[in-house]
Amino acid sequence: MNKVLFAFGIHNHQPVGNFDYVFEDAYQKSYLPFLEILESHPKFRITLHYSGVLLDWLEENHADFIMRLKEMVDSRQIEMMSGAHYEPILVAIPDRDKVGQIEKLTREVRRHTGYDAKGMWMAERVWEPHLPKTLREAGVTYVILDDSHFKYAGLKEEELFGYYVTEEQGETLKVFPISERLRYTIPFQMPEDTLEYLRRVAARGKNEVAVFADDGEKFGVWPGTHEHVFKNGWLEGFVSALEKEEKSIEMVHFSEALERLPPKGRVYLPAASYREMMEWALPSTATRELEEFEQRLKDDDLFESYNIYVRGGFWRNFLAKYPESNHMHKKMLYVSKKIEDSRGSLPEETRKKALDYLWAGQCNCPYWHGVFGGLYLAHLRHAIYKNLIKAENTIQNEIHRKGVQVSAFDFSGNGEEDVVIESPTLNLYLDPSAGGSLVELDYKPAATNLMDTMSRREEAYHRKLLEDFSSNASSGEVASIHDLMISKEENLQQYLKYDWYLRRGLIDHFLAPGTTLGQFADCEYLEIGDFVDNPYEYEIAKDREFDTVSLRRTGNLTADSKSIPLQVEKTLRLRQELSEIGIMYKITNLSEESVELHFGVEWNVGLLAGNAPDRYYEVGNRKLADRKLASKGKLENVKALALVDEWQNIRVDFEYEDPAKIWRFPVETVSLSEAGFERVFQSSVVFAHWQFLLNKGEQITKAFTCSISSVK
Amino acid sequence: MNKVLFAFGIHNHQPVGNFDYVFEDAYQKSYLPFLEILESHPKFRITLHYSGVLLDWLEENHADFIMRLKEMVDSRQIEMMSGAHYEPILVAIPDRDKVGQIEKLTREVRRHTGYDAKGMWMAERVWEPHLPKTLREAGVTYVILDDSHFKYAGLKEEELFGYYVTEEQGETLKVFPISERLRYTIPFQMPEDTLEYLRRVAARGKNEVAVFADDGEKFGVWPGTHEHVFKNGWLEGFVSALEKEEKSIEMVHFSEALERLPPKGRVYLPAASYREMMEWALPSTATRELEEFEQRLKDDDLFESYNIYVRGGFWRNFLAKYPESNHMHKKMLYVSKKIEDSRGSLPEETRKKALDYLWAGQCNCPYWHGVFGGLYLAHLRHAIYKNLIKAENTIQNEIHRKGVQVSAFDFSGNGEEDVVIESPTLNLYLDPSAGGSLVELDYKPAATNLMDTMSRREEAYHRKLLEDFSSNASSGEVASIHDLMISKEENLQQYLKYDWYLRRGLIDHFLAPGTTLGQFADCEYLEIGDFVDNPYEYEIAKDREFDTVSLRRTGNLTADSKSIPLQVEKTLRLRQELSEIGIMYKITNLSEESVELHFGVEWNVGLLAGNAPDRYYEVGNRKLADRKLASKGKLENVKALALVDEWQNIRVDFEYEDPAKIWRFPVETVSLSEAGFERVFQSSVVFAHWQFLLNKGEQITKAFTCSISSVK
Repeated sequence: MNKVLFAFGIHNHQPVGNFDYVFEDAYQKSYLPFLEILESHPKFRITLHYSGVLLDWLEENHADFIMRLKEMVDSRQIEMMSGAHYEPILVAIPDRDKVGQIEKLTREVRRHTGYDAKGMWMAERVWEPHLPKTLREAGVTYVILDDSHFKYAGLKEEELFGYYVTEEQGETLKVFPISERLRYTIPFQMPEDTLEYLRRVAARGKNEVAVFADDGEKFGVWPGTHEHVFKNGWLEGFVSALEKEEKSIEMVHFSEALERLPPKGRVYLPAASYREMMEWALPSTATRELEEFEQRLKDDDLFESYNIYVRGGFWRNFLAKYPESNHMHKKMLYVSKKIEDSRGSLPEETRKKALDYLWAGQCNCPYWHGVFGGLYLAHLRHAIYKNLIKAENTIQNEIHRKGVQVSAFDFSGNGEEDVVIESPTLNLYLDPSAGGSLVELDYKPAATNLMDTMSRREEAYHRKLLEDFSSNASSGEVASIHDLMISKEENLQQYLKYDWYLRRGLIDHFLAPGTTLGQFADCEYLEIGDFVDNPYEYEIAKDREFDTVSLRRTGNLTADSKSIPLQVEKTLRLRQELSEIGIMYKITNLSEESVELHFGVEWNVGLLAGNAPDRYYEVGNRKLADRKLASKGKLENVKALALVDEWQNIRVDFEYEDPAKIWRFPVETVSLSEAGFERVFQSSVVFAHWQFLLNKGEQITKAFTCSISSVK
Repeated sequence: MNKVLFAFGIHNHQPVGNFDYVFEDAYQKSYLPFLEILESHPKFRITLHYSGVLLDWLEENHADFIMRLKEMVDSRQIEMMSGAHYEPILVAIPDRDKVGQIEKLTREVRRHTGYDAKGMWMAERVWEPHLPKTLREAGVTYVILDDSHFKYAGLKEEELFGYYVTEEQGETLKVFPISERLRYTIPFQMPEDTLEYLRRVAARGKNEVAVFADDGEKFGVWPGTHEHVFKNGWLEGFVSALEKEEKSIEMVHFSEALERLPPKGRVYLPAASYREMMEWALPSTATRELEEFEQRLKDDDLFESYNIYVRGGFWRNFLAKYPESNHMHKKMLYVSKKIEDSRGSLPEETRKKALDYLWAGQCNCPYWHGVFGGLYLAHLRHAIYKNLIKAENTIQNEIHRKGVQVSAFDFSGNGEEDVVIESPTLNLYLDPSAGGSLVELDYKPAATNLMDTMSRREEAYHRKLLEDFSSNASSGEVASIHDLMISKEENLQQYLKYDWYLRRGLIDHFLAPGTTLGQFADCEYLEIGDFVDNPYEYEIAKDREFDTVSLRRTGNLTADSKSIPLQVEKTLRLRQELSEIGIMYKITNLSEESVELHFGVEWNVGLLAGNAPDRYYEVGNRKLADRKLASKGKLENVKALALVDEWQNIRVDFEYEDPAKIWRFPVETVSLSEAGFERVFQSSVVFAHWQFLLNKGEQITKAFTCSISSVK
């Protein structure tokens, strides 16, 4: 009888830094009921991947679950897959970390289940053609990728019921194509649709394998799917239906398919991921253009036949699209290099501890953004920085290095030098090429980057928010997440404001007369200076017990269509034992006339929760009506202002030599996540500003300090 | 005044193994007159790349040319670029060879011109995103790629007048986008078209750089271009016109642009090459489909707006498309690994000599095929194998290894084991998974792979040959090579025959009764056995002084819609001091009835010239009417037959224990090259066959030897 082998893979993962209740919710709604169905259907043989993050959590919180899993591995119902432990995008991390993370998860899987996993789950199926060499070095013999990867190499649907061999520098790797069709029918269509498809493959009589593999969260966590898959019995029905067809549909593990079938041939796959991600990775205008193109192809009946020749970007494009993602990425590479450079000079145990923090800081989720929250989720970014800074701290604690170290190099990978200041308690990353701004400010005792913020920028999907989506009423069917357009809040449109610069620290503004707080907060104001994002020169010096970095720009104000030359110099002063930054501005009027200036320094502080009672502003000895970190308002004559985070045990104190006017407001982004459109608090802007007249040739000085300390 | 910087790059290259007269012709028609124009226009500042292959040839043949070049480098008119010495596709070779080849050319450029080249020409602009790390290791700071690479990353035309920074694992590299528009206007349109375009870029007033870079052969070597560029004065006119606009168009070297302008930003480029190559790399059916798609987009006025989202394959797909290319590639990797493994055990000088042969054997030209001859050009493939075998010989001569070594491993990277037999004089590569056929047969004293052949397969462009292209009459304009469709011979269509298996050695055929030589030669016959390309089992043994490899398959004949089980066993026997292969076939009838068999063994011998008087057949003591290697005919009752190549000093002798019938015919492919459609002689087929009755359970034996020796 004609038969098809059916390899069924499930990938389960939760991001580093996700809330414990989210793990637990996913466990109750998906991971546990799925395993229970498996237990009651021992013939339903599948291949499972749990990311190391999730496996660690399960061990800690549901050790019994792992025992049950092991039993099914022992009975050969389940094949376990490896992966990179903390689920990084593999191409984004150094080779040594690729190997290290994979070996770690393989070890953990063996410890938990006794299974020697040979397959690897590729996070987000992000592939580049040079990977086989490193994967083989890490002991991986096969991976599972989307069939679109294969179609991009010119293979046709009917050639994809099997596995192929790919190669780099002579190292070979087996690759299975995941059927896109099955990815859409399971679990969203009736079981019969899947079976009918499998029967058709069987009828070819070619002794082939059909491959399904997808995220476990589609079975219970995605909106509506718990009802559908478990309560309404989709999975039970699917598995039972499969059992009835065991003569023509034989469930196999991927490793078995490798043993039983010869490879279909040789293949080389381009840099790709699943189709949707390749669209998201493009700049928003390009994403929209591509969507438009695809729509026109559909209208013209060309899409079906030719869509495999239509392609967007690839994962690394996210790093160019989102400077915030790039910064996190380059910080990660920098920390990785620090650890690598410490080889030999650090006890191996310490180095391993640092490595483990680093690897946790490589978890992919907040490094990119599509229709899942990702990069926009402040708590996920926060966890990345926390782990990376902990890795740095681990090395530093061992070395007991004293003093402040200032270095200049192209940290961000844009061809321009950055200035990195590292003291025992603080790290400051300055970008002279972009306004001499402060792009990262780490408070080491709390392992927190206070400058972990997001600018508001247009996303391709914002257009949809501006349209009326009342037509999207539930139609009874379980929609694929790609079709979902739910808003978690009314009138989110009003928050669609876009920034033209990056929301960080030490941003030097010159405002047009009459600029209001509202205009400024909405980024709909007139900047008359060119100091926000243009190049500054820098100078590094040592001044008695202080290390100083001076940043200077001779730029222009444009007022009444005249150009007024102006020099801004800002000097940062650090002393090793203090987590205090002294900042001195000198503004010089280089023109031949007097000029009225409205100058201010913007400082974003990212403290995660805008409306929590344990996080608030303090202003001198004045009581604030609204002291929450998300509050918006004006303050006059401020000498001292603090942002306090009792939860993280951090306070950030600003003290102004000349009493300052303060505008404060939150930066909130609007982004898509699994649950729909949502508003996310990103940072509190503190904008200290002064208005003054500067005569020709005159110089004015504005000084303040920023000190960071523990609350208690 | 608004100004544009204009960086003009030229890449000159000739393949390893190209005929000396082709080098000389290109020199006279292009390289020399181009340099003369440069000499007479010292303000025409350009960046030049000569591949190491060409530089070596120039040094040997026109040392004065290099002196003149050096003078212009000294006067800062010319910037020199580096590259990988023998112009390999960089992603196709091991990292150690990437670095070695680049360092070699950088050294050579310095020796010849005193210039310390920092830029690198990327062969065929084949890019993959992981390259920056290796390139930086090799001392490269910038490369030049097609603007299409950048558009695939979502960048728009107007953002491409400058350079970007890309990165891998923290290592950064500068990349310039070559304007596709300029690649089509220069030298094919009037100079004014280019100038008008450059003026428009200047008018943007943004202090930007426009980039042209392309093959030097477009200036003089491509059909019609010598007339156009030099005789009719296009280049003189272009340069003079540029000189007149020097206030608004300033010619700069790429290295100068890096100094004078900041980077435009950060970019990550996907695996890509120029648009056309990405189409060629796909399987032919996909190439045609993509062409069809593009045509429909043009018809619907969508192409112009959306073509950057339309994409074909990438370079590595050629390895899956052409098994011949893959085999050459895997041989190259195998030799590279041998040399790497010899580190420490070989004198460094010997290792370096072997490396240099290896690197020459990495020259990209015959590893792929588009509309240039490439892979179809037997003399270019021949040079690759010659160099690779010389590299092996260099190591072997040092080691003085005796005896025959037989090993089984996945040589070809398809997940199946191959058998590799290496004796002091011969290498045999057998593929048990594909008919147990002989896929490479190296005669080491002549450093020649006798099995270097090509199968005839359908190319996307063959359709055009079948159409009437009389309409393509010259229209006076110089056409881009992509529009050229010239046939070098009448009625080439008749040669469009396609093989369904690879044309190698030890191919076991069972022919349907009545099969004619003509049908067989055209591959339009009925194969009733399943022994040609199905799996054989293999066994390696030592039999007194002989090493033997036995290959066995139990397969089927299909005759009169019945299936007749049959076993074929072939045993190869080698003795170390002899370059003689003994081959013994045993065919066993496993069925319950007698069967009439027409069995034969096909052997392709690739000796380059089918119609040269110094290459011919010898048959026992019989005179042959047509003894040329391309001759087609039947011989009866043959005990001994030889193919003699006096030019290469090789003879291949077959001796048959039982007198055999022989069919011999040439395999000739039809492919495109710069000069149009052409027929290329690939191999001489020697098909020794026998007809006999085999009773049930009976076994028959057929034995022959193949000996290879020098003619003299």
